[in-house]
Amino acid sequence: MRAYEIQAGFGLDKLVQVERPDPTPGPMQVRVRVKATSLNSRDLMMVEGRYNPRQKLPLIPNSDAAGVVDAVGPGVTRVKPGDRVMSLFSQAWSAGEPTRAAQVSTLGGPLDGALADTVLLHEDGAVPTPAYLSDEEAATLPCAAVTAWSALVTHGALKAGDTVLLQGTGGVSIFALQIARLLGARIIITSSSDAKLARARTLGAHEGINYGTTPDWDKAARALTGGVGVDHVVEVGGAGTFEKSLRAVRPGGTVSVIGVLSGGAGTVPLTPILMQNLRVQGIFVGHRQSFDALNRAFALHTVRPVVDRVFEFSEARAAFEHLKRGAHFGKVVVRVG
Amino acid sequence: MRAYEIQAGFGLDKLVQVERPDPTPGPMQVRVRVKATSLNSRDLMMVEGRYNPRQKLPLIPNSDAAGVVDAVGPGVTRVKPGDRVMSLFSQAWSAGEPTRAAQVSTLGGPLDGALADTVLLHEDGAVPTPAYLSDEEAATLPCAAVTAWSALVTHGALKAGDTVLLQGTGGVSIFALQIARLLGARIIITSSSDAKLARARTLGAHEGINYGTTPDWDKAARALTGGVGVDHVVEVGGAGTFEKSLRAVRPGGTVSVIGVLSGGAGTVPLTPILMQNLRVQGIFVGHRQSFDALNRAFALHTVRPVVDRVFEFSEARAAFEHLKRGAHFGKVVVRVG
Amino acid sequence: MRAYEIQAGFGLDKLVQVERPDPTPGPMQVRVRVKATSLNSRDLMMVEGRYNPRQKLPLIPNSDAAGVVDAVGPGVTRVKPGDRVMSLFSQAWSAGEPTRAAQVSTLGGPLDGALADTVLLHEDGAVPTPAYLSDEEAATLPCAAVTAWSALVTHGALKAGDTVLLQGTGGVSIFALQIARLLGARIIITSSSDAKLARARTLGAHEGINYGTTPDWDKAARALTGGVGVDHVVEVGGAGTFEKSLRAVRPGGTVSVIGVLSGGAGTVPLTPILMQNLRVQGIFVGHRQSFDALNRAFALHTVRPVVDRVFEFSEARAAFEHLKRGAHFGKVVVRVG
Amino acid sequence: MRAYEIQAGFGLDKLVQVERPDPTPGPMQVRVRVKATSLNSRDLMMVEGRYNPRQKLPLIPNSDAAGVVDAVGPGVTRVKPGDRVMSLFSQAWSAGEPTRAAQVSTLGGPLDGALADTVLLHEDGAVPTPAYLSDEEAATLPCAAVTAWSALVTHGALKAGDTVLLQGTGGVSIFALQIARLLGARIIITSSSDAKLARARTLGAHEGINYGTTPDWDKAARALTGGVGVDHVVEVGGAGTFEKSLRAVRPGGTVSVIGVLSGGAGTVPLTPILMQNLRVQGIFVGHRQSFDALNRAFALHTVRPVVDRVFEFSEARAAFEHLKRGAHFGKVVVRVG
Repeated sequence: MRAYEIQAGFGLDKLVQVERPDPTPGPMQVRVRVKATSLNSRDLMMVEGRYNPRQKLPLIPNSDAAGVVDAVGPGVTRVKPGDRVMSLFSQAWSAGEPTRAAQVSTLGGPLDGALADTVLLHEDGAVPTPAYLSDEEAATLPCAAVTAWSALVTHGALKAGDTVLLQGTGGVSIFALQIARLLGARIIITSSSDAKLARARTLGAHEGINYGTTPDWDKAARALTGGVGVDHVVEVGGAGTFEKSLRAVRPGGTVSVIGVLSGGAGTVPLTPILMQNLRVQGIFVGHRQSFDALNRAFALHTVRPVVDRVFEFSEARAAFEHLKRGAHFGKVVVRVG
Repeated sequence: MRAYEIQAGFGLDKLVQVERPDPTPGPMQVRVRVKATSLNSRDLMMVEGRYNPRQKLPLIPNSDAAGVVDAVGPGVTRVKPGDRVMSLFSQAWSAGEPTRAAQVSTLGGPLDGALADTVLLHEDGAVPTPAYLSDEEAATLPCAAVTAWSALVTHGALKAGDTVLLQGTGGVSIFALQIARLLGARIIITSSSDAKLARARTLGAHEGINYGTTPDWDKAARALTGGVGVDHVVEVGGAGTFEKSLRAVRPGGTVSVIGVLSGGAGTVPLTPILMQNLRVQGIFVGHRQSFDALNRAFALHTVRPVVDRVFEFSEARAAFEHLKRGAHFGKVVVRVG
Repeated sequence: MRAYEIQAGFGLDKLVQVERPDPTPGPMQVRVRVKATSLNSRDLMMVEGRYNPRQKLPLIPNSDAAGVVDAVGPGVTRVKPGDRVMSLFSQAWSAGEPTRAAQVSTLGGPLDGALADTVLLHEDGAVPTPAYLSDEEAATLPCAAVTAWSALVTHGALKAGDTVLLQGTGGVSIFALQIARLLGARIIITSSSDAKLARARTLGAHEGINYGTTPDWDKAARALTGGVGVDHVVEVGGAGTFEKSLRAVRPGGTVSVIGVLSGGAGTVPLTPILMQNLRVQGIFVGHRQSFDALNRAFALHTVRPVVDRVFEFSEARAAFEHLKRGAHFGKVVVRVG
Repeated sequence: MRAYEIQAGFGLDKLVQVERPDPTPGPMQVRVRVKATSLNSRDLMMVEGRYNPRQKLPLIPNSDAAGVVDAVGPGVTRVKPGDRVMSLFSQAWSAGEPTRAAQVSTLGGPLDGALADTVLLHEDGAVPTPAYLSDEEAATLPCAAVTAWSALVTHGALKAGDTVLLQGTGGVSIFALQIARLLGARIIITSSSDAKLARARTLGAHEGINYGTTPDWDKAARALTGGVGVDHVVEVGGAGTFEKSLRAVRPGGTVSVIGVLSGGAGTVPLTPILMQNLRVQGIFVGHRQSFDALNRAFALHTVRPVVDRVFEFSEARAAFEHLKRGAHFGKVVVRVG
C-alpha cells in the first residue's frame, strides 16, 4: 500500500510518501481501498506538530476516508467486500457519552489515518456511503459534516425558526449552513469576503456579515435578531472570537466550540456565561448514530457537499498548503484511488 | 357583545346566539375584539356534550381566536390596545410542566371561549399575531398548529431525515405536515381520498397511503422505511388506529396521541410498547413558549395555514356541521368581526 | 458443558438437562463459566412458549448470568480470563437508540442463554462484576436492575422529591425501590400482602398500599400526593393495572411499561394519556451505558440485591415453579458453578 | 417600612437605614413582612458597586426574603394574607428558557430587594415556605439553594453514582453538597481548612481536598475517580479556578459556572472544552418550577439549611463584612422581623 507518513519529525516538508505491506484485517476489521480523503484543520495541526507533539511517529495523517471494502476479518457482518464506505473518526464511539476508549481510537492520530490508498477500519467504523454521493464528496463528511451535525442537532437541538450564527466559510461552517437550512433555521454567516458571503447566500444563508468592514459582527448579529441575540453560535475561531460569540448569543443560548483556529487559549470572560445562562458545548466530531442520522438527512434532501478543490494524491502537500492559506470555501479533497 | 352559548343543554341545535354586556378587563386581563375563530374537534365534542358532560352552562365554546386588543386591565404591560393577538389555549401555561392551574384555564371550557365578538384574555395568553397572517389564518393556529408543534418539536425533537407518519388531512395533520416540512423530515400521510393525498403532496408530503384501498397502511408505511418503521406517528384516530400506529413505528420511536376521533378507549396492546421501547406521548395543545417558537418559524418561512372554508358568524352551526362531516382539508374558520 | 434446553417443545416439563461440547469463543467473544443465573418472567414465558412461539429450538433459556471469564477469542481487549463478569441482556446494545441488531442479540432467546455452566458473550456484553457482590447477587442485575434503572434514570430522570409508584414486590419493583431510594424519591408500593409491604418499608418505601384491601389503589396513591398524582409509575401488571396507573399519575407524568404480567392487551383508555399530557414509555431492559451507571451507583452505596431464594442447578424446574407461584420478594436465583 | 438603601454611592459605608412609606400592592402583587434575609456574594458586589456600576440609586439590596404575606393586590389568588412565603429571585421566571423580562425582574437590583422589613412581590414570585423550616432557614434558599438545584438537577441531571466536585464551603457549595447527597452522588469538596472539610464530611461529603496543602486539587480529584475525571464541577471561583476545573472533569462532563469569586475574566483554555466534549453551563439562579421542586425534595428529606450565623437587622453592615471575610460555612442571615 501507498501512504504519506509523518516520519522523522513534524512539518509539511517532513510528509513523505512511502510503501508499506498491505495490512490484513483482524477480527471485526475491514480493509478499505481509499478513493478520496479530505483535509481538516486537525490534520494540518497534526502534520505541523501543533496538535499533539507527543504523537508517536511514523503516523499516516488524515481522518476522512471514502473508499471500497476490499477484505474483511473474522467476525465481520455489517459490511462486505465491494461495499462503498466512509470512515468514522472515532472508531470506537457508537453512541451516547464519549469514553476514553472512544478518544484513543481516532484516525489520523493516534491511529494511522487515511492519507493512503488503504486503511483498516473496525466494522462499526465503516459507514455505508449514500449512493448519490461521489467518493470525493463522501470523503468530506466524516469530520466536518459530523461535527456540524453534532453541534446543531445532537447537542444543539436547533429547530425551525431559531437563528444560528456561523463563522467563516470553512468546511464545518458550510456544512453547518447546509444542515441549519435543512432544519429550517435562520442563518447568519460571517466572512471577510463579500464574494464568499454572496456564495453563502446562494446556499441558503439569510444574512451575511463582513467582519472586515464590520468588526463588531457580534453587535450586527444581535441587531439582526431585534436585539435579543442569536440562539446558537458555531464557534470555530477560538480565543480570538469567543468573547464576541458570547456577546452575540441570547440569554440561555448555546455556543458550540468546534475549532480554535485563532488560538486555543486567551482571556475569556466567565461573567456573561454565568449571567446570561449560556451553554458552551465542546464538540469533538461525534458518534456513529450521529453520522447515520446525518446520512439519512443528506440523502433525503440530496445535499451536495461543497468541494472547494480536488488535489491528486501526489499533490498532498500542496493540498495542505492550500488549506493553510485559508482561502477555501468548503472542503479540500485529495483524490487517492 | 355578541356570542354563541351552549345554554339549555348540549347539541348543535342548542347553540344559541345571545347578547351579553361588554366585559371589563380585570387585573392583567385584556379585552379582545374577535375577528375570526376556528373550529377544533374538541369544540364540536364540547357543544355535543361528549367532551365534558359536567361542564357548567351557559358556556361560550371555541378556543381559537384572532382579533385586536381593545382595552386592557390594571397592570397590563405585554400588549396594548390596537395590537393584533391570538388566544393561548391554556391561559395559565407559559412554559415547562403542565399544572392543574394550566389545565383549568382553557378557553371554550371551562372558561368562556371565542365564538363571540369579544373575549377576555390574560395578558400572557394574548399572543402577538405575525404581521404576514390574515385574521382568518391566525385564528387557525392556537390549538391545531400548537398541538402539532408540541408533538413534533417540543416533545418529539423531530430532526431532518426522520420519517413522520400523519393520519388524515384534518387541521392538526396538515399543520404537522407543514412543520415536518420545515424541519426537513420525510412525510408519509394517509387519507381515504386520492385527491387529498395529491393535495398533501403539493404541500410537501413525500408519500401518500390511501387507507381505503390499503387498509394495512401500517405495513405500507413500514415498507416505505425499508422495514425499519417510522420515527414518529402523530396519532389522531384514537382506539381505531392506535394498534396500527404501534406497528408502524420503529424500535425506540414515538407515537404522539393528539386526538381520539375514532374513540377514546379500546383494546390496546401493551406488549409492542414494551418490547419495542416505544414512547407514547399525550399532547394536550401546548404552552406559550411553544406558540412563540411556532410563530417565529412560521414567520421566517411565511407558512400559510390551510383554510378549508370560511363561514360567517351567523353560519356557526353550519360550520360545525361541515367539520362533523369530515370532508375538510385543513381548518374550518368562522369570520366574526 | 452442562445446560438446560427447551428441546422438543414448550413447557416446564420439557426443560431437559443436556451435555454439549464446550464452545470456542470467536472473534471478540469471551467464554464465561457461569456461577449463578436468575429468573425473569420473560424466561418463564419463553420456557412455556408464551413469549415467542416461533423461537427456534433447542434453546438454552435465561438472560442473567454471573460468572468468570475462562477463555477469550481473537481481538478481545476489554476483559481477560479470571475476570468476574455479568451478562448484558442485549449483547449488541452499547448506548443510544435501540436498533434491530440490538433486538436480535438478546440472551435466552433468540440467542442461547445462561441456564448452563458456560455461556459465550461478546466482550462488550460482559460487564465487570462489582467486587462487593457475590455471584448470586450479581446474577440478579442484568435484566431486573437494568430495567428499573432504564425506567427511572435513563428515560425517567427521576429526581429527589419526586414520587414514584411501584407495583408488587417482584424483581424489577424491588430494584426500582432501591434505585428510587438512592435518587431521593418518595416511594409508594403496592402488594396484596401486609407482610411484604412491611418488608418494603424496611428497604425504604415511604408508603404501602394493600391492593387486596384497597382495590382503588390508584385513588389511594393520588390521595397520598395531595390529589396531584404521582410523578412516575413503574407498570409491571399490564392490561389489568394500566388503566389505574394512568389515573394515579399527575399531569405530564410518566408510566413506564416494563411488564405485562396480567396480560399484554386489554381495553385501554387513550383519553387520559391525551388530556393529561402523559408519557407512556416502554422499557425493554437497557443498554451497556445504563448497566455501567447502575453498577457505579450500587457500588457507591453498597446496595445489596434482594435474593428471595437460591436453588441448585438440579432444581431449575422448581425455581421456575417458585417464580410462577408469585410469592417471591425480590429475585429467584439458580446457583450453577 | 424600614429598609437599608444604597443611596448616595456605592460602598458598605454608604449603606444607610431609612424609613419609607408602606407600599400598596398593585395588581397581582403581594406585600410581605420580611422576617429574615440572607446574603449572597451578588448582594455584596452590588453594595460595593462591583456588580452593576450603572444601577439606579437608591436601591434596597438583597434578593433573599422569608416572611409573611400581609396584604394582596387586585387579582391575587395564589397566596393570601398570613401565608409564609419566600421570594423568587427573578420575579417573572416561572419555567423554561430565561427571557429578557425574567432578567430584569430580579430583586436586589434592578428591583428593590429584601434588606427591609417589607417587600412587594408578584404573586408568582412568592413561594410557600415549607412548614418545617424557620424563617431564618427559609431565607437562605431563594438564591443559593435554587442555584445549586438548577446546576445539579435542572441542567445537570446528576444521578446516583455520579461524582461531583464542589469548591469551598460557601452557601451554594454547601447546598450543592446537600442536594448531591439527596441524589445519591459521590461528593468531593475542596477547602483551605481541614476543619471545614471535616464538617463537610459530617454533612455527607465523601472526600475532602485541602487546596492549601494540595494546590493541584484537580489532579487529586481526578485520581479519586481512577483517572477518569469527575462528572460535574460546580465552579464558584471563576477565572482563578476554571482551568483546573476543566482538567478535573471527565470527557463529556459538565462544569456549572455559578460564581466568579476570584474574578470574572482570565486566560481560559478552549482546547480542553473542545477536545473533551465538555459542557460549560452558566447558572443564574433559576425559575419557579426549580424552586418548587427543590422545596419538595428538601421537605421530603427534612433538609436543614446550614446557617453560619444570624445577625440582627441593625447589624447589616457587620453581616456583609462577615461575608466578605470568607470565613463562613454555609449561609449568613440577617433577622429582620
